[in-house]
Amino acid sequence: MIPTVEWSNGAVRLLDQSRLPEVVEFLDCRDYQTVADAIRTLKVRGAPAIGVTAAMGVALGAQAIKSADNTVFTQSVLKICDELASTRPTAVNLFWAIERMRKKLKSLQGCPISDIQQALTNESQAILEEDIALCKAMGRHGAGLIQDGQTVLTHCNAGSLATAGYGTALGVIRSAFEQGKKIKVIADETRPVLQGSRLTAWELMQDQIPVTLITDNMAGSLMRQGMIHLCVVGADRIAANGDVANKIGTYSVAVLAKAHHIPFYVAAPYSTIDLKTKSGADIPIEQRNPSEVTTIHGSHPVAPKGVAVYNPAFDVTPAELITAIITERGVFKPGEIASQFQS
Amino acid sequence: MIPTVEWSNGAVRLLDQSRLPEVVEFLDCRDYQTVADAIRTLKVRGAPAIGVTAAMGVALGAQAIKSADNTVFTQSVLKICDELASTRPTAVNLFWAIERMRKKLKSLQGCPISDIQQALTNESQAILEEDIALCKAMGRHGAGLIQDGQTVLTHCNAGSLATAGYGTALGVIRSAFEQGKKIKVIADETRPVLQGSRLTAWELMQDQIPVTLITDNMAGSLMRQGMIHLCVVGADRIAANGDVANKIGTYSVAVLAKAHHIPFYVAAPYSTIDLKTKSGADIPIEQRNPSEVTTIHGSHPVAPKGVAVYNPAFDVTPAELITAIITERGVFKPGEIASQFQS
Repeated sequence: MIPTVEWSNGAVRLLDQSRLPEVVEFLDCRDYQTVADAIRTLKVRGAPAIGVTAAMGVALGAQAIKSADNTVFTQSVLKICDELASTRPTAVNLFWAIERMRKKLKSLQGCPISDIQQALTNESQAILEEDIALCKAMGRHGAGLIQDGQTVLTHCNAGSLATAGYGTALGVIRSAFEQGKKIKVIADETRPVLQGSRLTAWELMQDQIPVTLITDNMAGSLMRQGMIHLCVVGADRIAANGDVANKIGTYSVAVLAKAHHIPFYVAAPYSTIDLKTKSGADIPIEQRNPSEVTTIHGSHPVAPKGVAVYNPAFDVTPAELITAIITERGVFKPGEIASQFQS
Repeated sequence: MIPTVEWSNGAVRLLDQSRLPEVVEFLDCRDYQTVADAIRTLKVRGAPAIGVTAAMGVALGAQAIKSADNTVFTQSVLKICDELASTRPTAVNLFWAIERMRKKLKSLQGCPISDIQQALTNESQAILEEDIALCKAMGRHGAGLIQDGQTVLTHCNAGSLATAGYGTALGVIRSAFEQGKKIKVIADETRPVLQGSRLTAWELMQDQIPVTLITDNMAGSLMRQGMIHLCVVGADRIAANGDVANKIGTYSVAVLAKAHHIPFYVAAPYSTIDLKTKSGADIPIEQRNPSEVTTIHGSHPVAPKGVAVYNPAFDVTPAELITAIITERGVFKPGEIASQFQS
């Protein structure tokens, strides 16, 4: 499996997802600003992958600080944390991972700067490795929800490309497939950025998991024809009441699934659950550049010049439309999430 | 208003909609095969426009027949009718218009061939002019369903570009706008062929009707936020029981509208209603080339090479999801359609 993000000779090496599937190219980030820019421009995307990458960006930035003064060093790292936290507003894993780096920094106050720098790098690597382990645990818990012979609809890319590896929603699918179940995947292309066609279809084809690509507006018709047995998607943030923010279009899939009595699952790690966010209404929704809608890949125009555009990157699916949330700790009803994780 | 299709110096002149909005170019068809090809390749599209164009194609083909033998002439025209009828399988206006040309031909048996040729040309022009008149009547009947200050969602292009002029769904919107109502339109981009972004947004901007473009998967989220007050779409075929075949994605919009208690209207002329088709289950759904999904405009790739694709051009919306059908004779419940038009 091609790594989404890794340490490589002191650089943060990212698979440039904005160029997939035509070009498989890596970007070696040698300063934290390049990492921040890669997150902003969707070279790396997917809530867990963004969290891991941001943590590595903090470590990379810390390594480059020249000051021998502990206070100056700490202030500089905190400034880097703030800058990386401002790259995307919706995915909570970003804030979670950066908060973990802040805590590590705080725990080492007074230590030699070189030790702190090494500890931050180690912490980011730990976050990366844990992310893969969490995805595999999610996969084990969720695989039982997919029966032999079933067809699963997924939206956007919640795959190995959206995480440090293995994937959340696609991790569940991957795990069921590895158990020998004959399953099929229907991938929504997921306009405007086409993570479904460019990333999910590509990733599943690499693993020879049968996948059929559709445009987003076909899902309802396929459900009506009995061609979809369940839906599994990822999440960018889960509120305390079980409401889920995820890629734009997720809400429509959930409404359609409900109307056709099809189970709708969300697969996401603990770090996606934000108990400070009471409900979906409190989740900020990122509005992105209209050019994502009016062009393909920022170049080929598909709409008249100057047309007004609405381009929210995410939407909120209320808890009542979600059959269950698959986490690394097990499968829970959306309403059980808060009590499960309060401890 | 730029004409979609017209007679021009003996040729059938089509606005090449496959190149809009970047290029406004006309195609002069000088033989019926070019007309058939233009329908097949979506240079002209939209159920009413296809019907009008096919009728003109029949007349154009008839003009070119050299035989002085009435039987040979008739057989040749019927062969042209069959060929034009095979260009698209779903839109019933195509078959309706061609049937009308066949009837005209039959009514003139024994007349001089040059008279028949002229009569067929006149008949196609009558179909064109009637289509515009029907759209305006639909607009008058439907405009009252849109209140001042409301926002209307539409899917695909059921506009002047989908008809000989004025439009069906967009005719209703246009009529409400001409009445001075301050209305807004949300246009689904309508993948894979992007009729919403390329045609609907363009057409409404030409008329300075406020339009905001969204990707198809945003409609549900906007409905949940109260940003859409009603939906109006066109139709490619309406079955006797009121089921409607229309552009892929229409069904999802209807399910979403129902879930949000938003009225869902279909605007279509009499010629779209096919009493021989009992229900939506009997409507053949055209499967189009996977390249429509895997590329943009047939050139720019957006999916991995060799990916499996499902690409139905249409879906069926059952009558129970349709608030009313707007026709040139008035606004009817889907269940009233058959009895209204049986006479």
